[in-house]
Amino acid sequence: ADVKKIAVIAGDGIGPEVVAEAEKVLKRTEELFGYQFETEHALFGGIAIDEKGTPLPEETLKVCQSADAVLLGAVGGPKWDNNSKELRPETGLLGIRKALGLFSNIRPAFIFDCLKEASTLKPEVLEGTDLIVVRELTGGIYFGEKFRRETANGQEAVDTCAYNVTEIERIARQAFDIARTRRKKLASVDKANVLETSRLWRETVNRIAVDYPDVELEHVLVDNCAMQLLRRPSSFDVIVTENMFGDILSDEAAMLTGSIGMLASASLGEGSFGLYEPVHGSAPDIAGQGISNPIATILSVALMFRLTFGYHEAADSIERAVKEVLDAGHRTGDIAVDKRSAIGTLAMGQLIVDAM
Amino acid sequence: ADVKKIAVIAGDGIGPEVVAEAEKVLKRTEELFGYQFETEHALFGGIAIDEKGTPLPEETLKVCQSADAVLLGAVGGPKWDNNSKELRPETGLLGIRKALGLFSNIRPAFIFDCLKEASTLKPEVLEGTDLIVVRELTGGIYFGEKFRRETANGQEAVDTCAYNVTEIERIARQAFDIARTRRKKLASVDKANVLETSRLWRETVNRIAVDYPDVELEHVLVDNCAMQLLRRPSSFDVIVTENMFGDILSDEAAMLTGSIGMLASASLGEGSFGLYEPVHGSAPDIAGQGISNPIATILSVALMFRLTFGYHEAADSIERAVKEVLDAGHRTGDIAVDKRSAIGTLAMGQLIVDAM
Ligand SMILES: CC(C)[C@H](C(=O)O)[C@@H](O)C(=O)O
Ligand SMILES: CC(C)[C@H](C(=O)O)[C@@H](O)C(=O)O
Repeated sequence: ADVKKIAVIAGDGIGPEVVAEAEKVLKRTEELFGYQFETEHALFGGIAIDEKGTPLPEETLKVCQSADAVLLGAVGGPKWDNNSKELRPETGLLGIRKALGLFSNIRPAFIFDCLKEASTLKPEVLEGTDLIVVRELTGGIYFGEKFRRETANGQEAVDTCAYNVTEIERIARQAFDIARTRRKKLASVDKANVLETSRLWRETVNRIAVDYPDVELEHVLVDNCAMQLLRRPSSFDVIVTENMFGDILSDEAAMLTGSIGMLASASLGEGSFGLYEPVHGSAPDIAGQGISNPIATILSVALMFRLTFGYHEAADSIERAVKEVLDAGHRTGDIAVDKRSAIGTLAMGQLIVDAM
Repeated sequence: ADVKKIAVIAGDGIGPEVVAEAEKVLKRTEELFGYQFETEHALFGGIAIDEKGTPLPEETLKVCQSADAVLLGAVGGPKWDNNSKELRPETGLLGIRKALGLFSNIRPAFIFDCLKEASTLKPEVLEGTDLIVVRELTGGIYFGEKFRRETANGQEAVDTCAYNVTEIERIARQAFDIARTRRKKLASVDKANVLETSRLWRETVNRIAVDYPDVELEHVLVDNCAMQLLRRPSSFDVIVTENMFGDILSDEAAMLTGSIGMLASASLGEGSFGLYEPVHGSAPDIAGQGISNPIATILSVALMFRLTFGYHEAADSIERAVKEVLDAGHRTGDIAVDKRSAIGTLAMGQLIVDAM
């Protein structure tokens, strides 16, 4: 039988509770569709720092490398915020992306009809918003040389931002490919009027564009994009950009949908392997109370089914179940208008499993 | 008599038309308050490329250097977008900031009561929004070494982001000083979980904070700030950040107020000298039609009066006049709900001059 191996990284804060619900969805998928999953848990982030002395233990990396996909809850929290660089959860995150070759971060941002009101944007502006930010994830200023040196003006810190043609080409191709399956519009975001990396980015995207005459390409400066996302979010289809700009813009895009507790993300490399995680963070303030929203993590499983396994029917089933449960009025505290009627993490997970 | 010298750079696109109205305001201020201004026009940006072969002619720099303040319209346009780097308007902009030592860009973003509806944010979210982004303007990745080199993965482009303690200290002090005159809240934005420059930024801001025990300081990661601006804009007072983050966040902040055609900005160095300009761009699509909105440029004059000359009464008069004209229902096309009743640039300028 074709057993799919999934590395499960619960992580910190609300990570373990939301991942537990996603695992129930995996189980239910086995029953309903006859698929087989083998899950292996691994330590990562803050809990790995506490238990193993490093945010990304060798063993965890091995578990991921021998899996077909990774499901990640969330990492980080105030407990580790003042640690030295090597002992910070974020360092593990950057490390795992690089080690697994996950050069592309896919962040869909769209509106859940029943949650339109949760956005701070006017409903008529939001109407029809359905975009994907494709963020380059293993290059740029995140991974360039960093150092300090003494100068006449005191200490100086330096970060280096570098991109080569190969790195830009592969992410550009992926974005064009995704745009092709959607509304065929690609916005490439850079700061080509100032940065050399952006000029190379733009040249390279233009060269790749020749292979995608059916996709309409526009170049948008990053500052302008931050504005246009607010002014006309529904006009964007696929946005492709470098690591740092993607970090900022994908969070802005997620927030403007008002559905940040509901959005899933995928980090991909070459081939079908991927790491899937909710867009929201570890929310240490509500961890352990059983009130967190497991939907984004459950939808991350659906995204895994689509992008890594090609289990579209099962993905449909999950997404339909989520919609049904929401349409029936069930809400966790973060998305409830009337907080008193909010249900907990377990109840929400169970309702979705039952609705599949 | 104390004659103030103002270098006037009309620039490109709608620049000349909006600056012309601002000059009428200067003239009216002389009549009303007995001040004396000597204006000297200089070529800059696209028009300087066309007429002098460089975006920032020596002569223009001299005019600015011998002035007490600079009033700038807007620069740039599609005509010069594909020029080589040295022949682009933006290069002139970066050059003039550096040459004049304008290390700080002050961008107030607030709501004009009568324009609340123009924002894509819900009015109840926007309510009370009144913030200032203090952007470092002569350091960071904008001014670091840039180059290309050949690698096994094709050409590679490199940008360098550097900050030293002196650069961070002076902008931090300025932001704390501004916060002190307002609601005494400062948000310092960085990406300290990834960047070395951000870690130095945070350490330095924390050290300066000791001198400002009356100002409440919070550190916000740039991706989170892009979200929080959307979620709770009114909770921000002063935001201080480095050059690239400031570029993105100040545009996001301006756009969310819905008043981008109305916002002024100041670029300052040590001492009282400053360069003042509207936040909006050169809008080449509507240039020369006499329909552009001169209010942001007129309010830039008011900001100049406050920050460079200390002419608070005159600044009050301008700001009150703008408010009065808007309250009376007069609108240029960009802010008119009913476009048919929109008035032109000249009419708007005259109404404000008359109301002073
Ligand atoms: C935690 C941090 C290093 C990370 C990033 O900036 O990539 C996070 O913000 C994200 O977007 O996944
Ligand atoms: C034109 C460009 C170089 C400039 C910048 O990024 O600084 C502009 O966006 C601004 O904010 O003044």
